[in-house]
Amino acid sequence: MIISTNIQQTREIISPYRSSGKTIGLVPTMGALHEGHLSLIRWCRRECDYTVVSIFVNPTQFAPSEDFASYPRPIEADYSACRQLNVDLVFAPTAKEMYPGENITWIEVEKLSEHLCGASRPGHFRGVCTIVAKLFHIIQPDIAYFGQKDAQQLAVISRMVADLNFPVQIRPCPTVREPDGLAMSSRNRYLTPKQRQQGLCLGQALQQASRLFAAGQRDSHVIIEQIRPIIENHPEAQIDYISIVDNELCQPITVIDRPALLALAVRIGQTRLIDNIVLDPTEQNS
Amino acid sequence: MIISTNIQQTREIISPYRSSGKTIGLVPTMGALHEGHLSLIRWCRRECDYTVVSIFVNPTQFAPSEDFASYPRPIEADYSACRQLNVDLVFAPTAKEMYPGENITWIEVEKLSEHLCGASRPGHFRGVCTIVAKLFHIIQPDIAYFGQKDAQQLAVISRMVADLNFPVQIRPCPTVREPDGLAMSSRNRYLTPKQRQQGLCLGQALQQASRLFAAGQRDSHVIIEQIRPIIENHPEAQIDYISIVDNELCQPITVIDRPALLALAVRIGQTRLIDNIVLDPTEQNS
Repeated sequence: MIISTNIQQTREIISPYRSSGKTIGLVPTMGALHEGHLSLIRWCRRECDYTVVSIFVNPTQFAPSEDFASYPRPIEADYSACRQLNVDLVFAPTAKEMYPGENITWIEVEKLSEHLCGASRPGHFRGVCTIVAKLFHIIQPDIAYFGQKDAQQLAVISRMVADLNFPVQIRPCPTVREPDGLAMSSRNRYLTPKQRQQGLCLGQALQQASRLFAAGQRDSHVIIEQIRPIIENHPEAQIDYISIVDNELCQPITVIDRPALLALAVRIGQTRLIDNIVLDPTEQNS
Repeated sequence: MIISTNIQQTREIISPYRSSGKTIGLVPTMGALHEGHLSLIRWCRRECDYTVVSIFVNPTQFAPSEDFASYPRPIEADYSACRQLNVDLVFAPTAKEMYPGENITWIEVEKLSEHLCGASRPGHFRGVCTIVAKLFHIIQPDIAYFGQKDAQQLAVISRMVADLNFPVQIRPCPTVREPDGLAMSSRNRYLTPKQRQQGLCLGQALQQASRLFAAGQRDSHVIIEQIRPIIENHPEAQIDYISIVDNELCQPITVIDRPALLALAVRIGQTRLIDNIVLDPTEQNS
């Protein structure tokens, strides 16, 4: 496995593989790899000839008030996890390598970034789109892998790729959960054991929503109000949002008459967790 | 010469040339080709193995009040000009092919788009950056050719390419002028013979500025005020702007103590013309 921290070197390492017709896969991460990331890497290894994992905690997607400085950076453990999965190349640049001067070029996906995390974290998706475009231009992957846990991010990036004709396929991968249902996240390690227990309320709320939906409930307001207490029941849980939005533009909908996303963000103490499920009335067994 | 109006087909036509290691060059145009464009195509032919010319009048870079509908579209003459220069591929998509649905993804270069044409034409450079990124993703050129006549556009695109790590080299090419000094532009054909004559005032003003600068004048205000009457002298000429800006971020400067751009935009009747020169105090014979 090669580790490269340099853009030019990275291009040169990948170039012969591309020239010889190999399929290049990219798993973009901020490191602190967990089973969710590892599943993306396994998908990539299965489908591509050459697997690149990028590890970069991107400053431009954090607001000044957020956890950029404290975000976990267990880089040696990350390398070792990648090595075990036979990753071909880890691209782990410094902030200075990625942003050598002032960055004044931004990519924005309107509408899709308005609600959910876009509303709670102004500028977040602008930072995400911009860094993902940079990574796409550096690695030039044929396929890039993103987890459905970050559903809005996936929708935003898919739309960016379509609107800007990026020559990249976006492969969505299912959320990986702990045995007790907590969605895997690098931020889970912030939780105390007691908070960890309370964090289960996100998954429980989604399960309850799923049951209501399966029983025929299509009123967003009713579903949201019925699952809200499941979260509010926990002393350290503070709801950032519970929303039902359409799958295409992530706009709130009142009646679930097309594929929708139930997304929620909850602070457990200082730690902000997100999770979601798809509610699809066009599927038989949703 | 192949003419393609379809994105997927265009990718497939170019792909084998890229795979076999040929250098791909792109000359992005809005058609109505004149000697300025043709000189870009000649540069491209000289430096690249495979020359692509795109012809697309991009709606998103025109304001509603502007000349999108009336912009000249002499497509057969354009094809024939490209054929004569042995262009390999003309990519001439429809608006529907380039914008099949609502475009909600935009690329913006801050600061650089604030002044000059960015101020007179709000949203213009956002449209330019977005379409150029789309063309870069479709054609995937090694080198792309832009004229210095559109100096701010060149600066904006160069910065976009640098900030977003596009794997493309931007090649600036000198402004081509009519024998009497008028900078070539597709919009020149809007001018009546009388207006055509008055249009010479842009070049005359720049020449006078150049003389003042060569004589040691470094005060932007003095230069601007001395050339203003050259334009105002013409009954149908209305100044949009005359500005001296730094070469890097296109911000107005009061003293020319680093490479600068003297740029002007003038309406002759209904027709908006632009022109510019570089004033470089670091050069011996500027």
